[in-house]
Amino acid sequence: MAHPHSPVIVIAPDSFKGSLDARAVSAAIARGLLRVWPAAEVRSCPMADGGEGTLDVVMSRGGDRHVMNVSGAAGRARDAAYGIMGTPEGSTAVIEAAEIVGITDRDAMDAPVGERATQGIGELIVALFDLGVRRFMIGLGGSSTNDGGAGMLAALGLRLLDSAGAALAPTPAGLGSLARVDAARLDPRLAESSITIMSDVNNPLCGEQGATAIFGPQKGVAAADVRTIDSVLERYAMLVERATGRSAADKPGAGAAGGLGFALQLVGGAFRSGAEVVADLIGLDAALAGAHWAFTGEGRSDAQTLLRKAPYVVAERARRAGVPITLLSGAVDGAALPELSRVFAGSFALPSGPATLAQCIADAGALLTQRAEQIARVIATSWSR
Amino acid sequence: MAHPHSPVIVIAPDSFKGSLDARAVSAAIARGLLRVWPAAEVRSCPMADGGEGTLDVVMSRGGDRHVMNVSGAAGRARDAAYGIMGTPEGSTAVIEAAEIVGITDRDAMDAPVGERATQGIGELIVALFDLGVRRFMIGLGGSSTNDGGAGMLAALGLRLLDSAGAALAPTPAGLGSLARVDAARLDPRLAESSITIMSDVNNPLCGEQGATAIFGPQKGVAAADVRTIDSVLERYAMLVERATGRSAADKPGAGAAGGLGFALQLVGGAFRSGAEVVADLIGLDAALAGAHWAFTGEGRSDAQTLLRKAPYVVAERARRAGVPITLLSGAVDGAALPELSRVFAGSFALPSGPATLAQCIADAGALLTQRAEQIARVIATSWSR
Repeated sequence: MAHPHSPVIVIAPDSFKGSLDARAVSAAIARGLLRVWPAAEVRSCPMADGGEGTLDVVMSRGGDRHVMNVSGAAGRARDAAYGIMGTPEGSTAVIEAAEIVGITDRDAMDAPVGERATQGIGELIVALFDLGVRRFMIGLGGSSTNDGGAGMLAALGLRLLDSAGAALAPTPAGLGSLARVDAARLDPRLAESSITIMSDVNNPLCGEQGATAIFGPQKGVAAADVRTIDSVLERYAMLVERATGRSAADKPGAGAAGGLGFALQLVGGAFRSGAEVVADLIGLDAALAGAHWAFTGEGRSDAQTLLRKAPYVVAERARRAGVPITLLSGAVDGAALPELSRVFAGSFALPSGPATLAQCIADAGALLTQRAEQIARVIATSWSR
Repeated sequence: MAHPHSPVIVIAPDSFKGSLDARAVSAAIARGLLRVWPAAEVRSCPMADGGEGTLDVVMSRGGDRHVMNVSGAAGRARDAAYGIMGTPEGSTAVIEAAEIVGITDRDAMDAPVGERATQGIGELIVALFDLGVRRFMIGLGGSSTNDGGAGMLAALGLRLLDSAGAALAPTPAGLGSLARVDAARLDPRLAESSITIMSDVNNPLCGEQGATAIFGPQKGVAAADVRTIDSVLERYAMLVERATGRSAADKPGAGAAGGLGFALQLVGGAFRSGAEVVADLIGLDAALAGAHWAFTGEGRSDAQTLLRKAPYVVAERARRAGVPITLLSGAVDGAALPELSRVFAGSFALPSGPATLAQCIADAGALLTQRAEQIARVIATSWSR
């Protein structure tokens, strides 16, 4: 019977995509818990998985938010937000690729995918090098580009040349005439840097499971062009690997963010679960220490949740800290309950009766508060006897 | 921390109308709880409110089920089930009015409502008198008749005469020519009997809130006939009250089951909450004694639930026994949660995500098992620390 009146509760949900961001989810759950335990110590730790919302979540736990003017995917300059956190190892930059080459950037999406590129990401890294930053956490996901990261590498000093020796556009269209790659001027500060790539994508750069085949169509690659662009990227990767003496095209995750995963690994970046990185950055383990219960959740939970999605990462850390954790998601796949039940002390969904998805999304805040309160009543009553 | 491995759990739900009967609800909840506590002592106490399903529920806890051939609402003979229980006070008959004059009896519904009557109920009572039974629990609700209980009273010996002194049909149509009532031959065994009327209806026999105005139309009373039939019943009641020297027409519940509530009260019957009667008959208090937790539920819970519906009656008895109780219903009205939370240690609904009513009804058994299991996980985990 642990502190029935003033328990310490950790709330660490992911966002409910399309409905509430992680901070709003956390606040809604807290409201419900405080109705049962007005004197509870609530430790709100909104989570993210390295994708959209990561920067907001990390910055809400400390660090400074900045804006840099860099090239967007279609070349036009845009302000991109990023964060700087003080960590024991020095200043760490937190970057969301989607802030620079996001698929929600309408301006860039007006240009064909063949003319979009990632140079803005390279520009930001170079600018941060100039400011002395050598540690980078880069969240992939939600990108509009399919350039194999050529734009970023070009901005970092890699020279991509045509048969006449002229620099070409680092886009799928431009790379079609790639003849030679010169790595001599690649920024030497890359070698002294640590780059963590936050992504759960495991696809290779090319082939049937590659970036173009799997993610290209949703970015505007026509079905008829998939093969051509895939071949262009394959040749580009081969020439880049030969020029740098490194290999990355076949590594898992090389196909993330249209091949940005290839380019970042080529310059020394290492993949890590976005949720794990975020959990570290927000100090989740410290929040869990001494807590009596934890809550996590996401828009929809199913068997995929246990493949290291944010709620699973939170649950693993709660388990190590000896803290029971309950899952509270928009929806929970009944077929996954046997698996989820091995990890969570109860898995619950939002609806309080028959309801459409639109109703659940519209009422998500109120439903979260209600459901959290009702679960807390069960816990509080159990503790009291 | 109460017996974390082998708790004693009481499961006492009402039916989920249109989906699962109370026994099926109870079994589905038990399956979920046993996944968490394989060694639990589950005490299944399916509930009813005096309406449909009452007989099944009561008989499942003991007693004998019998069938008697009596007149249906339109006069044609039908087999009607009833129960006989041994109680400390002697044999008690449990009768559902709907078994004899049910609105789901298609044969009777083919006749106009003006020609339907409750004589079968009187026939059954007389037959039980002959068998020595003097205690009756009669569940109203779901009747097709609107005869003011005239049919039942006639079968019990009350003479309803026209101006020529001839016995008339004890139907709304027949009562139109009622001139005189003779109570001299009313069965004297009524005086030595105890009749408990199970119903939650409070309407009087006549008037704007009367049986004909409120419940007549759903039984087939045409809007144009409401006033006429109401007047006929008013005059009938006046003459019956004068002949017997008793009054009942203005008592709450006189309008239940098309005026059967009037006739039963006139012969000494007393209203009692159906759920309270059922709770007594099934021995709910004994089941709750020493239990660690209880579950109840119904198809849909809202503010009406607290007006002495079955889950509320179960909750009151659980409270007196010091047993926490959780509500698990098909749907729970979010607006009623503040009130429900004063009574229940957690109120939960079936859906695990966006779902239609039809899906919830079709999957009710599986969803109940899932939800019960998840709630049990929260309790079990809370108990373990």
